[in-house]
Order: sequence, then C-alpha cells, then structure tokens
Amino acid sequence: MTGPSRADAEALDAEDPLAFLRERFSLAALVGPESRNPRIYLDGNSLGPLPLGVKERVSAAVEAEWGDRLIAGWNDCGWMDLPQSVAARIAPLVGAAPQSVIATDSTSVNLFKTLSAALQLQPDRKVVVSERGNFPTDLYVAETLLAGLGGALRLIDDAETELAAALSAGDVGVVMLTQIDYRTGRKLDMASVTDSVHRQGALMLWDLAHSAGAFAVNLDEAGADFAVGCGYKFLNGGPGAPAFLYVAERHQGAAIPLLAGWMGHRQPFSFQSHYEPAEGIGRFRVGTPPVLSLTALDAALRVFDDVDTRQITAKAARLTSLFIDCVEPFAADHGLTLASPRDAVRRGAQVSYRSDKAYAVIQALINVGVVGDFRDPNIARFGFPATYLRHVDVWEAVQRLHHVLDQGLWKVEAEKPRRAVT
Amino acid sequence: MTGPSRADAEALDAEDPLAFLRERFSLAALVGPESRNPRIYLDGNSLGPLPLGVKERVSAAVEAEWGDRLIAGWNDCGWMDLPQSVAARIAPLVGAAPQSVIATDSTSVNLFKTLSAALQLQPDRKVVVSERGNFPTDLYVAETLLAGLGGALRLIDDAETELAAALSAGDVGVVMLTQIDYRTGRKLDMASVTDSVHRQGALMLWDLAHSAGAFAVNLDEAGADFAVGCGYKFLNGGPGAPAFLYVAERHQGAAIPLLAGWMGHRQPFSFQSHYEPAEGIGRFRVGTPPVLSLTALDAALRVFDDVDTRQITAKAARLTSLFIDCVEPFAADHGLTLASPRDAVRRGAQVSYRSDKAYAVIQALINVGVVGDFRDPNIARFGFPATYLRHVDVWEAVQRLHHVLDQGLWKVEAEKPRRAVT
Repeated sequence: MTGPSRADAEALDAEDPLAFLRERFSLAALVGPESRNPRIYLDGNSLGPLPLGVKERVSAAVEAEWGDRLIAGWNDCGWMDLPQSVAARIAPLVGAAPQSVIATDSTSVNLFKTLSAALQLQPDRKVVVSERGNFPTDLYVAETLLAGLGGALRLIDDAETELAAALSAGDVGVVMLTQIDYRTGRKLDMASVTDSVHRQGALMLWDLAHSAGAFAVNLDEAGADFAVGCGYKFLNGGPGAPAFLYVAERHQGAAIPLLAGWMGHRQPFSFQSHYEPAEGIGRFRVGTPPVLSLTALDAALRVFDDVDTRQITAKAARLTSLFIDCVEPFAADHGLTLASPRDAVRRGAQVSYRSDKAYAVIQALINVGVVGDFRDPNIARFGFPATYLRHVDVWEAVQRLHHVLDQGLWKVEAEKPRRAVT
Repeated sequence: MTGPSRADAEALDAEDPLAFLRERFSLAALVGPESRNPRIYLDGNSLGPLPLGVKERVSAAVEAEWGDRLIAGWNDCGWMDLPQSVAARIAPLVGAAPQSVIATDSTSVNLFKTLSAALQLQPDRKVVVSERGNFPTDLYVAETLLAGLGGALRLIDDAETELAAALSAGDVGVVMLTQIDYRTGRKLDMASVTDSVHRQGALMLWDLAHSAGAFAVNLDEAGADFAVGCGYKFLNGGPGAPAFLYVAERHQGAAIPLLAGWMGHRQPFSFQSHYEPAEGIGRFRVGTPPVLSLTALDAALRVFDDVDTRQITAKAARLTSLFIDCVEPFAADHGLTLASPRDAVRRGAQVSYRSDKAYAVIQALINVGVVGDFRDPNIARFGFPATYLRHVDVWEAVQRLHHVLDQGLWKVEAEKPRRAVT
C-alpha cells in the first residue's frame, strides 16, 4: 500500500484556511461515544453532525420562547419571519438573492411546489425531463403530479449526453435534475446545463440536496429558474430539518404553486376566503412555520458565518482527491472500482466505490469507527464536508478501510441480515 | 354583575376528575413571567402551552440522539417510526384505529394530500363543497388544487342548513368541513353530517384543527372518510408542530395522494425509480420525518396518558358554560353579543363574543394577564382546554374582563395601530 502519507495529510491541515470551522461542532459528536476508537464521520452527506449552540438555541425556543411567551412568541420572537431569516443564511451558500429563497417544508414538498409552478408557466409544454437515476423522491413527485395534471415524465440515463435529444421535440416544460448524483457523486455543470435547457425553451429546476453547503453554488449567475435543497445534509440542521426552495426573481410574479396555504396569502391575517398569492417568494410558504426545527437549522447555519464558499469548494476537492489518492493503490486488489469522476470539478463532496461486498465493507467500517453508507445495489459512499473534516481524518479512514479489507473483517458482516439506513 | 360566584367555581374544581392534568404542564408558563399578575391563558386553541418533559426530550433528541448517534439514530432511536408512534398517541383522541392515522407535515399539506386522494376515488365527481367561512388555508388548498385538476369549489354559508341543496346535483366528490368554526366555535355533528354526505354519494373530509384534544372525536364510529388535524393547538406540540391526517381503513387500498415522496414508497430504501405506494396509511408520508419537532409532539402528547376523552368533553362543556354564565349578566350592557351556540353540545372548547371593540378589548385583557385572541372583523375568542384550565381561572378571567370593560381600559388600545397575531 502506497499513496499519500500521514505527514502529507498533516501538511494539508496545517495550511487549511477552514480548519477553524471544526471547532463550531460538538466534538463529542465527532469523536463518538467511545473515546478509545474515535469516530470518523464520512456520512455528513446523509445527516450532518451537531453544531455547537444548537442545543442551547432549541432549549431557549422551547422554554423561554414557547413556554414563557406562549402565543405572543409569534410577534415577539421572530417566529413568523423564520422561513425568511433562515433563508437569508442559506442564500449566500447557493448564490442567490435572499428574497429568492425560503426555508420551509420538506425537500419533497418543495419539489412539488416548484415543479407545479414551473409547469404552469408554459401550459402547452407538459413534459418533464429527468434522469432515471435521480433520487427517487424527485421522480415520485413528478410522476404523481404529472399523472394528475395530464403530463408526462421523460427519463434519460445521463443528462450530460442525452439532454439535447430529450429536448429536441420542443414539448419539454421543465428539466428537473439533481446536481450531484446521490450514488456516484457526479456533478453537473449548472451554468452550461441550464443554458442548454433554456435554448430549447424549457425551464430548469435544480435539486441541490448534496450541493448546498458542500461547495459554492451560483444559482443566480447560472440563470437557474427554480431549485430546492435539503437542510439536514451539508447544512447540518438535524434529522428531518426543514428544506428550502429557490425561485428566480424574474418568475416570482407569475409562478404560483399548485399547493397553496394560508401563510402564502398576500394578507394571511385578513382571513379571506379567496386565495391571493403573496408578493414574491412568500407565496411558496404553505402552513404555519415549524418553529422548533427552523430554530435548530438557524443555529446550525452559523457554522457558515464569515466563510468564503470558494474555500469550501477548494477544500472539498482536496479532501475527496486525498481519499481517492489513498484508496486507489489498493482498490483493484480488493475489488473496489471508483464510481465517482476522477476530475474534482466533475464531482461533489463525495466519493463512491462500487464493490460486490460494499454493504459488508460499510458495516465493518462502522465497527472500526468509520461511518460511510451503502446504497443499492453495490455502492459504498463517503461524504467529505469541508466544515468539520480534517485531512488526517481522511488519511486515517483509509487506513481503517485497508485494514477491513486486508484482514477480511467484512466477511462476518456479509453473513448478517441487512439493515436499512437512510 | 351577578352570575356564578368564585365559590361556585371552586366547587367545580374540587370535583373535577381531570384536575391532575394541570400538573403535567410547566406552571411557569401558565403563571407567566410576572408573578404579580398571574396569566390566565385562554389561547390554548391557538398555541397550547408547554407540557412538562418536552424540553428534556427535545434536548435528549438533539444531544444524545442526533449528536451521539448521528446517522445511526435512524435505526437506533425510533426516528423512522415517529410518524406512526406519534399517530398512535393521537388516534385514541380522535376515535381512530392507530393504523388510520399518521403524524407528518403541516395541516395544509395534509389537506392537500387527503383532498387529492379523495377526489381520485370518484374521478367523475369534480366538485368540492365547503363553507365560505371555513379556515382560509382549507379553502386555498382546495381552490388551487381544483384549478389545477379542472374541478370546482362550491361554497355554502352554513353546512347545517345548506348542505343537502349543495349535494343534490350529484356532482360532489368531497365535502370538506372544519368541525369547529374557528370564529364562532360552532360544532358540527360529525356522525349526522357524514351520514348525509354519504347518502348523496360524496366523501367526507373533516378538519379537526379545533377538535383533537378539545373533546372526544369518533372518526371511525362516525364513518368519516378522511380527516386532518393540528398538532400545536389542543395537542400542545409547540409552535408549528407537525400535523396529522386520517384515512379510513376501507379507503387505504385505493386512495393515493397527488403528492408522493420517497417515505411513502412501498420500499423506500430500495430506491426504485417508479412510485409504488406503501401499504396502508404509510403512503401518506412524503419526505424525511421532522425528528426534532415530532419528538416535541410525542412528549407533549403524554399529557393525555390515561385520560378518558369523554371527561375532556364534559369538562370543556363545564368550562365554556361557566364562562358564558359569568359574562352574560353584563354582556349586553357593554355591547358584547355571544357568537357561540348556547347549547354546549353544539360548540367546541371555545367561546366567542362579537363586539365593535373586540380588538381593543383583547389587547386590554392581555395587559391584565388574560390571553385570548381577536379574529377579523369583530370576534373576541377564548379557548378552554380541559387539560390545564381550572374553573377558578375562568371565573377570574371574567372578573378581569368586566374590569376592562367597566373601567374603559380598552379605549387606549383602540388608539394604537393593530398588530397581527396568529
């Protein structure tokens, strides 16, 4: 086994301009309950770890706000504005004007709202294009919505090569793609894909589930039309945290979601029986804001205070490259095949390997303190958030991976019944 | 001023079988930050107060579950089952089999899912009937959904008198009503309304926003088809708590929501590209469960452990009757007109009065520690949760109301600009 040394990793840490961000997390969470075998958490792309300050903010929201202020909290504690104030923290991470983003509901519900609004903008174009390997919830949202509205979902295998053909008939209203493939980590070029979609008269809806907080995203600059993203992955908002959505300012006057509730009304507290959409992004609010979970997300987003997103992009590239450079020397001998692009510009903050024994390897890695995850049918997936990971963590994780493979520690796991993980 | 005496109220408290429930709440919340003037909280129908144990459970979910277990929390901490386990606590409060209820999303989103599923069961009946005075979010959900699907919303003024006529054309697929009118507290007879709707071939969707936890509800017994309800009013789940929905077991095989996400798939972790709805109520799940807010709701619902819902009904009737009996002797002299039914069987755990000065009276009452709320255009609304309110609280609140009116304390409030409250 050759490749980069521990000293190489330490040198990268020494010059890491984002090294200070690790101190914004609960180190207990990252080290793990068992101090003997410190945990290396390479699954922040599934559920980000606990940032410092979240517990205290949530406790205060429960006791000092809800408990003491009761109903007055809506006026006195900023609850009603949380979807906007949280969005203002997310906006710079995705290159959007704050008034183009709202934090609310789940990613799936936000997909429904944005996709339905996008389809209404061009009622004669009833086809939605997406990738067959897109994350399932995106496909289910589109499939059921289009069945109801009388449209069609056109699935392609690879947006990088098949998009032009899929758009050539001129019947496509919306292209809906996840920028980072959740299995392989492949990254689509937002600006060029958006541009090619626009040239065919369609609108572009981006799912940023594995993009926001993982590297710099530039929605406005790329000319994106709509986007959604997740609050509990690289944004560290906690399990099932509220999601966000983006609507380009040029569409905010005409785009109306098929799912409208009282909080999206122009005057919610005038209690009118007829729906009049709020000006701007506010019409994409639906029900009462989930105050406790929005508070947790708000506190978690302070991790990104004073951070240059270009440095996040650069560090994610360094971390993932280091991982690949460390694994490749022994990968082939142990039946691992790199599933992610070699070129860092073409991948997110994630590296995946294919292997027949991927499930068992991931389980055995957990036993030695390295947390990644398995995705059907044969993907071992590792996430590399620039916020809390050190280069030495990456180097050490690979030593343990090599140990698991070299010692055959995965074999006992292959015998056990499989457990579902999210 | 005559009417019941403080001794009368004390006697009712002495024989109250639910008196012990008050001790399940944070008394600091109910007494208020200023001990000099104890708060009497008659707005639990807008936002329930903080139950004991919620703060500790939420802190544990943040630190010991999310912080320590990280992604393993999905398997180890019951997160994935929270929509069902919380629903199992709600089910007895609404007279439903546990497998007919799910706790998820907001009331508005749940209305969308149930209404869209109900409409698909009879595709040739594209009309939805509701009341013009229904809570706005219900109307907005129906209006926008029906505009998309090509159906129509037929609004009537009073379900008790106009429903038969509205159904006579045979084109109505769904009747969607809120059992308790949010302005007047009028209660619809669930069994008889449902029966009359069924006899005209339509399905019945109940909004239980002001019913669940306020009095016994019997969805299964009444033959209801669908229902939704709110987690943050009488269920005390905290600001913006997750809501719930109900689908009668007989519909669970055929009813499919227009809004479908990965958590409602038959096998979410097989990551299939085609949507296959889960067996049973699970298909009404959409995105990843909001763990922190579901945990708060779960802890809050322990208030109802070992409680006979018939006693909640009886106590709500006693509290509201006591309030009316105390106010009526001076109501007319001060321009207050009872907006709620006199017959306790025909009202929820709420009493409303109409008055030109309703807004100013509510503000002045807050200044003397009595929290009710104002609803456009002229409604002063008071909620009477059987869980934490004492009869002496009701009596004392009326003394302060009389003081506000008799001393003209509302006049200074009438001069100030109005503030929105939820």
